[in-house]
Amino acid sequence: MQIRPATEDDTYAILDIVAPTLAAGDTYAISADLDDAAVLSYWLGPSHEVFVAEIDGHILGTYYLMANQQGGGAHVANCGYMTAPAARGRGIARAMAEHSLEMARQRGFRAMQFNHVVSTNTLAVALWKKLGFAIVGTLPQAFKHPEHGYVDSYVMFRAL
Amino acid sequence: MQIRPATEDDTYAILDIVAPTLAAGDTYAISADLDDAAVLSYWLGPSHEVFVAEIDGHILGTYYLMANQQGGGAHVANCGYMTAPAARGRGIARAMAEHSLEMARQRGFRAMQFNHVVSTNTLAVALWKKLGFAIVGTLPQAFKHPEHGYVDSYVMFRAL
Repeated sequence: MQIRPATEDDTYAILDIVAPTLAAGDTYAISADLDDAAVLSYWLGPSHEVFVAEIDGHILGTYYLMANQQGGGAHVANCGYMTAPAARGRGIARAMAEHSLEMARQRGFRAMQFNHVVSTNTLAVALWKKLGFAIVGTLPQAFKHPEHGYVDSYVMFRAL
Repeated sequence: MQIRPATEDDTYAILDIVAPTLAAGDTYAISADLDDAAVLSYWLGPSHEVFVAEIDGHILGTYYLMANQQGGGAHVANCGYMTAPAARGRGIARAMAEHSLEMARQRGFRAMQFNHVVSTNTLAVALWKKLGFAIVGTLPQAFKHPEHGYVDSYVMFRAL
């Protein structure tokens, strides 16, 4: 597996991962009704440094790295990760997360924060805990899940 | 005191409140180096519904109301409040906060969340607690204060 910065040539492969994940509406606090242009505008936005995970020439995952806040909060990084549905369970999310922690360190960030980890996304919560993140906050019923209704979200944080 | 939606005529009065508050760099996780255009672009951004607090024709405070997240998180509101430095201690922040809770209810929000309340901003923390907000998360050393260095920030939340 190679994890590398995204290029323009990766745009459609990224869209193929991000669009269905957002459309499912069960993990990201982003509209599930975005058209392709809006999906790309979000994921490839100017504040995002975007990477892809590639195996045998196929892009199977993507993540972005950004500053979670500006000014006095600019030393804390934020990331979002997505794996192609067909490629889940192959360690791609974990590899991207480890890569992102190293990138964030290289960029001079002192910590990483996830603002809104949906509590029903148990695989993600478990993975972030394995990678050293702690749940530092619980947002009561802050996410309306398409199947489970209002569920809690977590704020997760780790120093770098 | 009248609290009402901001109009174009309020732009410079708003700038006079927001610019020095951001330039102080001790309460908002926003760059302290923004020029006037960038300050207005932030405070009057398209996602913000902006209000002003007026006494005897003088605008002494302003706040914005927005959705804190999109998609499954769009039922939680977020606000930012600023009072003119010379007008502090006159209950303007409290009046704006109470107004914002009512506006958020009217807009159909089910809760309100503050993502980054700097722990050294003790007056704000005390006011939010009086108004029913709880600290639901502590972000360790997530804010670099210009005098105190790295300090904690709080995530504060209340149902509506």
